[in-house]
Amino acid sequence: MDVPEVEPAAKPSRGRRKTSADSQVTKDLIVAAAAQEFAQGGYDTTSMRGIARRAGVDPALVHHYFAEKAELFAASLVVPLRPDLILRVVLEGPADAIGESLARAIVTQLRDPVVRSRMISLIHAGLGQEFVATMIRQFVRRELFRRMAKRIGTEDAELRASLVAAQIVGLLIARYGIRMEPLSSADDDDVVARVGPVLQWLLTGEVGTRPG
Amino acid sequence: MDVPEVEPAAKPSRGRRKTSADSQVTKDLIVAAAAQEFAQGGYDTTSMRGIARRAGVDPALVHHYFAEKAELFAASLVVPLRPDLILRVVLEGPADAIGESLARAIVTQLRDPVVRSRMISLIHAGLGQEFVATMIRQFVRRELFRRMAKRIGTEDAELRASLVAAQIVGLLIARYGIRMEPLSSADDDDVVARVGPVLQWLLTGEVGTRPG
Repeated sequence: MDVPEVEPAAKPSRGRRKTSADSQVTKDLIVAAAAQEFAQGGYDTTSMRGIARRAGVDPALVHHYFAEKAELFAASLVVPLRPDLILRVVLEGPADAIGESLARAIVTQLRDPVVRSRMISLIHAGLGQEFVATMIRQFVRRELFRRMAKRIGTEDAELRASLVAAQIVGLLIARYGIRMEPLSSADDDDVVARVGPVLQWLLTGEVGTRPG
Repeated sequence: MDVPEVEPAAKPSRGRRKTSADSQVTKDLIVAAAAQEFAQGGYDTTSMRGIARRAGVDPALVHHYFAEKAELFAASLVVPLRPDLILRVVLEGPADAIGESLARAIVTQLRDPVVRSRMISLIHAGLGQEFVATMIRQFVRRELFRRMAKRIGTEDAELRASLVAAQIVGLLIARYGIRMEPLSSADDDDVVARVGPVLQWLLTGEVGTRPG
């Protein structure tokens, strides 16, 4: 892929106190470099070190602004939602409440029109551009499915996690993207009451039996 | 919306036997006119008569090629899948098997790469262009949700049907569009065994209780 180079930034001089405008510029530069690295190499092979190199800054500076790769990825895609952080909180609760707390967390986050439209744009881009699809694929597997799988513990746990993701993507598209009625106008509480148990069953239900 | 007019076709002369090339041209003309009518007026207000008028053909000729509006809509969007027909077959079976037969029908249809890529393109277009979203919205409500609701019979049946649609859209996007793993490589049978019960619960499960 042909990605233009970022102009390397001057190394931040240690002698002078940076203003917040300075640090915003540096941050933007790192994010721009990250977007290019992810686009070229995909999520898995991109490293914080490689991003620092492309941005022309010290790796420590990258780590100063962004604690981990997932955070930089979210920033580079202008994704205001951090599904990995939501998941971390959800997974701390009891295993038989994951479905409902996940549904609640998703629906609550998607109340924000900015979050909603950016998440939809991301799926839209993923359906149109293969490299975006690849990044989403790698990100969800590494940061979401594997963590959920570890918590669930069954052999098919990653498949279960990916089915949960499919249900959430479908909710995002149908309720907020295409805005199918009456789903689009339904109460958040009603949606949580109907989708929560489904997510829970996908994660821990016995396959071959039937819910309900 | 500014939609170019279709050149009216010469009325088919009754005196001569049409070749199949002729009828393909007429059919294409009707489909082009339908696409324009749907784009201008949406699914609900577009009529077979209006399409015939725009195409410059007799309404009987439109009905000769296309039995109903849903068929013309599918043709105008180059949708090779007729969800309304799939649904008709599924609804003929017992009510407590709708989820599983629907899941089976969807997964089987989506084995065809052409069907798959066109369904994905349709969602992609729906997320990018409001008039496509409007058409999808109207089509699914009239041809799918209301029919399912009639079969299910509860007061919240249309909401249930729209949640089923959300799950199917999510499966389409995650398994075949973004191709999230391990869902993308999972067996059709395995997917049906996991998604079928979910669809069934969404349609007939007791809300407030928990599946499983």
